[in-house]
Amino acid sequence: MGTTQVDSLPEPKYWHLRTVLTEALDSEFTVGEILPNERDLAARFGVARATLRQALEQLELEGRLQRRRGVGTTVAPPRMGVAVGTSRHTWPGTPDDAWDPADCVLETPPASVAGALGVHPGDAVYTVRRSRVTDGQPVAAEQLYILPSSVPGLSDVDAPSGPARARAVLRELQRLELERQESDVELGSARAEHAKALDRLPGAPVLVVTTRYRADGRTTALSVATYRADTCRLTFGDLGGVEIHHQAHPQAS
Amino acid sequence: MGTTQVDSLPEPKYWHLRTVLTEALDSEFTVGEILPNERDLAARFGVARATLRQALEQLELEGRLQRRRGVGTTVAPPRMGVAVGTSRHTWPGTPDDAWDPADCVLETPPASVAGALGVHPGDAVYTVRRSRVTDGQPVAAEQLYILPSSVPGLSDVDAPSGPARARAVLRELQRLELERQESDVELGSARAEHAKALDRLPGAPVLVVTTRYRADGRTTALSVATYRADTCRLTFGDLGGVEIHHQAHPQAS
Repeated sequence: MGTTQVDSLPEPKYWHLRTVLTEALDSEFTVGEILPNERDLAARFGVARATLRQALEQLELEGRLQRRRGVGTTVAPPRMGVAVGTSRHTWPGTPDDAWDPADCVLETPPASVAGALGVHPGDAVYTVRRSRVTDGQPVAAEQLYILPSSVPGLSDVDAPSGPARARAVLRELQRLELERQESDVELGSARAEHAKALDRLPGAPVLVVTTRYRADGRTTALSVATYRADTCRLTFGDLGGVEIHHQAHPQAS
Repeated sequence: MGTTQVDSLPEPKYWHLRTVLTEALDSEFTVGEILPNERDLAARFGVARATLRQALEQLELEGRLQRRRGVGTTVAPPRMGVAVGTSRHTWPGTPDDAWDPADCVLETPPASVAGALGVHPGDAVYTVRRSRVTDGQPVAAEQLYILPSSVPGLSDVDAPSGPARARAVLRELQRLELERQESDVELGSARAEHAKALDRLPGAPVLVVTTRYRADGRTTALSVATYRADTCRLTFGDLGGVEIHHQAHPQAS
C-alpha cells in the first residue's frame, strides 16, 4: 500500500499466500469447518506466522473466514445478499421495510448532512436510529435524518421517544409523495458506536450507503446506513427485496 | 480486526490518531496540499512512526490522503461520484456508456460466472474487457461475459479482435430486448491484473459491482466491474448518469 508506482514491485508475500489459501478453502474445506491452528498452517505453507496472520486477516476482510474467540478460525458462509435499492422507490418505514427503529431524537446533524438537507448548521432535525438484522446477525446500522418541516402533523404528545416516536415520524413522512431517490455506495470505516452495534472493531471496513429522498422538490430525508463489508453484498435493481443470489465470492474475478 | 469480542477492547491507538488527523485535515489543510513528512508529523502528534503510518494508510484507504512516490502525501480531493445504476436500464455499449472497450475474446469463464450464465463449466463465452477513466484517472476495470447464443448474428469475418470486435459483440447484444437488470456491490481486493490497470497494488480494496442483464428469460450477459474504493463513490438511482454529488467524506457519520 502507499504508493502508486506498482510496476516494479513484486507481489507481496501475504498476497500470494492468500491466493494459495483461497484455493485450499475452495477445494479442501466446507462452510463452518474449523481451520488448523496458526502454527500448523504456517508450517504447512512454509511461511512466517506474521505472513500467515496477514493473509488470514485479508481473507477475513474478504468474508472468506470468520475468527471468533474461543472457537478459532472457521470457513465463512457466502456473503448475504442484502437488498438496498429497488426500482420501485418507497419511503423508509413501510411494512416490508427490513429495518427496526430504535429511537428518534431532535438534534443537530453533522455539517455534511445539514448541507445535503439544506438546513443551517446548528439547526436540529429528526434523527431516527435503526438497525438491520438478517439471519440473526447484525448487518447494518442507520441514521435517518428528516426535515422537521416535512412532518408538520407530528404530535408531540404521544410517543415522545423510543421506537414508537420513530414510527410516528416515519408515518408522517410517508404522507408526502416520494419524487426521487438516489443512493451512493462507498467504502468507509466503522466508527466506535457503529462498530459495537455491528459486532466489529472500530476501523473495520464497512459499506456506507447514503440515500437522498426527495419530495416537494427538495431533499426531505437523508439516510446514512453502514453495512458490514465482510458479510454483506448489497443488491440493487429489479430483484431488490428478495434476498437471493448466493454465489461464490467474486474477488474481482 | 480478528475477533468479534469488542466490548472490552480500547480504541486502537492508530484509530484515535486517524480521528485527530481527520480533524486537522478538515481545519488546517486544503485539497492538494502536501503534508509534513512522517518524522515531523509523528513528533507533532507524539506517536511512534509505526502508529503514524498505520493512521496514514487508513486515511489513504478512506480516500482522504494520496501518497505518491516523489511527491509525498497530499490531501485528496473528495471521492468522485461514479454513476453505476440508473432506473432506466440499458445494455452496455450504448452511446452514453462511460466504458472503453479494449478487447474481446472467446474463452472459458470462471466457474462462478459459468454458473450465473447457466453454461457448462468449460464452455467458452465472449469476454469483453473494458476500462473506465474519469477526469484522466483510471477508476474501474470490467470483464463483461456474454452468451454466444445471444449474439448469433455476429460475423467472424470483420473485426476478429480488439476494440472493434468488442463493439461488434455489444452491438449484436443490443438487438435483444433488455428485460431486467440487477447489481450487487461488495468489497473485494484488487487482483494483480486489475491492480495494474487501476494504478494500485494487488490487494488494494476495491468495490466489485456484479451486474446481471436478463433477456429472453435468462441471464444473457454478466458484468464484473472493479472500482477503486479509495477514489470512487458509486451512485445508484434516478440521478445516475450525472456525475455530481461532491460532498464531504461520510465515514459512517
